[in-house]
Amino acid sequence: MLNLLYFSRALSCEGVFYVNDMRTVEWDDQHQQLRLIDQRNLPGDFAILSYGDHHSVAEAIRTMVVRGAPAIGATAAFGLALAAYELDVRDVEKFRNHLHAAAQTLLASRPTAVNLGWALARMRPLVDAPAQTVDEIRARLIEEARRIAEEDVATNQRMAGWGASLIDDGDTLIHHCNTGSLAAVDWGTALGAVRMAHEQGKHVHVLVDETRPRLQGMRLTAWELDQYHIPYEIISDGAAGSFLRSGRVQKVFFGADRVAANGDVVNKIGTYMLALAAHANRVPVVCVFPTSTIDLSLANGDLVPIEEREADEVLDIQVKGRPAAPAGARACNPAFDVTPWSLLSALVTEKGVLYPPFEKGLAQTLKK
Amino acid sequence: MLNLLYFSRALSCEGVFYVNDMRTVEWDDQHQQLRLIDQRNLPGDFAILSYGDHHSVAEAIRTMVVRGAPAIGATAAFGLALAAYELDVRDVEKFRNHLHAAAQTLLASRPTAVNLGWALARMRPLVDAPAQTVDEIRARLIEEARRIAEEDVATNQRMAGWGASLIDDGDTLIHHCNTGSLAAVDWGTALGAVRMAHEQGKHVHVLVDETRPRLQGMRLTAWELDQYHIPYEIISDGAAGSFLRSGRVQKVFFGADRVAANGDVVNKIGTYMLALAAHANRVPVVCVFPTSTIDLSLANGDLVPIEEREADEVLDIQVKGRPAAPAGARACNPAFDVTPWSLLSALVTEKGVLYPPFEKGLAQTLKK
Repeated sequence: MLNLLYFSRALSCEGVFYVNDMRTVEWDDQHQQLRLIDQRNLPGDFAILSYGDHHSVAEAIRTMVVRGAPAIGATAAFGLALAAYELDVRDVEKFRNHLHAAAQTLLASRPTAVNLGWALARMRPLVDAPAQTVDEIRARLIEEARRIAEEDVATNQRMAGWGASLIDDGDTLIHHCNTGSLAAVDWGTALGAVRMAHEQGKHVHVLVDETRPRLQGMRLTAWELDQYHIPYEIISDGAAGSFLRSGRVQKVFFGADRVAANGDVVNKIGTYMLALAAHANRVPVVCVFPTSTIDLSLANGDLVPIEEREADEVLDIQVKGRPAAPAGARACNPAFDVTPWSLLSALVTEKGVLYPPFEKGLAQTLKK
Repeated sequence: MLNLLYFSRALSCEGVFYVNDMRTVEWDDQHQQLRLIDQRNLPGDFAILSYGDHHSVAEAIRTMVVRGAPAIGATAAFGLALAAYELDVRDVEKFRNHLHAAAQTLLASRPTAVNLGWALARMRPLVDAPAQTVDEIRARLIEEARRIAEEDVATNQRMAGWGASLIDDGDTLIHHCNTGSLAAVDWGTALGAVRMAHEQGKHVHVLVDETRPRLQGMRLTAWELDQYHIPYEIISDGAAGSFLRSGRVQKVFFGADRVAANGDVVNKIGTYMLALAAHANRVPVVCVFPTSTIDLSLANGDLVPIEEREADEVLDIQVKGRPAAPAGARACNPAFDVTPWSLLSALVTEKGVLYPPFEKGLAQTLKK
């Protein structure tokens, strides 16, 4: 079940839409539905889509209606809560089996970001805990999903504070992908830190790399920065090295989809080359993520499954209305890459700032 | 004066156009015009444009109807020859002044590739050498421009031979920008080497990085590889690092717009990050260019003027017909970057292969 709630031209002359008017992921209590900002056609078309079952939520994650590690974690939690309303049975075991199957479907929607598994793992004990009725489990699940969403916002604001402490007045930053409000329930990760620094009165200038193939930088981050009134320019991904070499950039900021036990960061494709170029030019590289992105079960980043997405995401762009690729062209489209921890200057979570080597610090952070 | 000679759908079902049916830059003796393949709308629209005066030739270089360092060198030479037909005077000094002004206009059309200045410097003595009539100078100039174009093809084939000697059977290569037939009068530089290896029967696989913002990799290199029947996949520029780290790539190949005395390479934006990622993963980096691209007057690459092009080249792309950038977005668009010589494994010219350090070898190469 998928309803189009409204559909309007964002940033039109008639009125500017502010992303903060709504959360990226929001529970609609009245209709018992999940509402998601549709990020696929931003900034041109702003739409909010409503979801009433876990299958369509899994599809929304897969097709990137919603993206960003924290955002898909919260979305999956609500997806499981929706699954609890799909089955009209009294048999608690049958009900639990349905929920476990639904969790598997949601988990399989995207492989790389660990927040998806983290959120579902947090929901699981509430499915399995003793219950007299299915209603009892339903109530627990929706309550927990809402808690995950609320905590996400609070977590991100704390993280933004720590991240902002690493930004100086007058800094020019390069930022990769989108890590703002749209990547989380609200506030986001790396871009949240930039926004916090700006709100603290620091003058910040952002070079937004466009982040091919899906252009989350050009489409989403530039759009958010317009709303926060933070000055920026968009650059091609390949231009970052030239700016880093020029001495005009003070820091590089990005988020993470999964952080391994040693601090290796798996993040949107292009992150590794950006970090390499920053490191080669002694520009600090800061990675900002909630502790739910840490996966201590994997010793290093090369063990993280890397999603391979459709060739069309690379090929289906037009210049002046004309297709850019030759007819029948082939493409490879790995969606994430691994940035070795040795290229990173600082890892920022809601619990503080870690400096290399990260292994002990990450383990301790999760125990706090 | 600009005539559209013909305009057809390339690679349509009706018939595949082969770039080798015509040279990228060709003199039309019958009409005394310069014919250029219009590279702006390839691969969708194939058109040949005709030019009869040096001002429109300069504009064609500026707007990238023709691009690629060797190609714009030959184009500028023909542009100066065209200038010799513009003025109907008998006064040799007046005629020479007109030609020197025309050379300035052509030289100013793009600042980074040195081949433009190289070709015009080669024409200059023919303007200034003793002459009884203006017709004498006209004849010399058109003859020299044709010689430059012919030599370009022969030079590129020799260079392709040297380059191919560095490619092994079974290699997977990453290639940046377009350095094929379209980047020269014919054959090209780095892609010429790949084509030569393929024609020698070596199995070569190319990962074509798309080369934002103008997508010369996706638009032009993929199109040429289709014609040569060389297997390839297009990748986002930011994905190159992930492939290099994976061990699936044996070499990186690209061209150059200017090579400084120490071997620093100024080339299409994105080259530096690609070379850094290859170097970090011990993948050999091969840069292929004719000796006309060497500029011994500049000690290093940081002295080369870097062209800053229009923001629209970055911003004006669409996904599924929708603009990708927010309305009113800003962009920075440096067209070239500097790759320090220490990241390069080999420099290939028509005279052979150089290994680092390059300074002595480059100086000796020019003396050969």
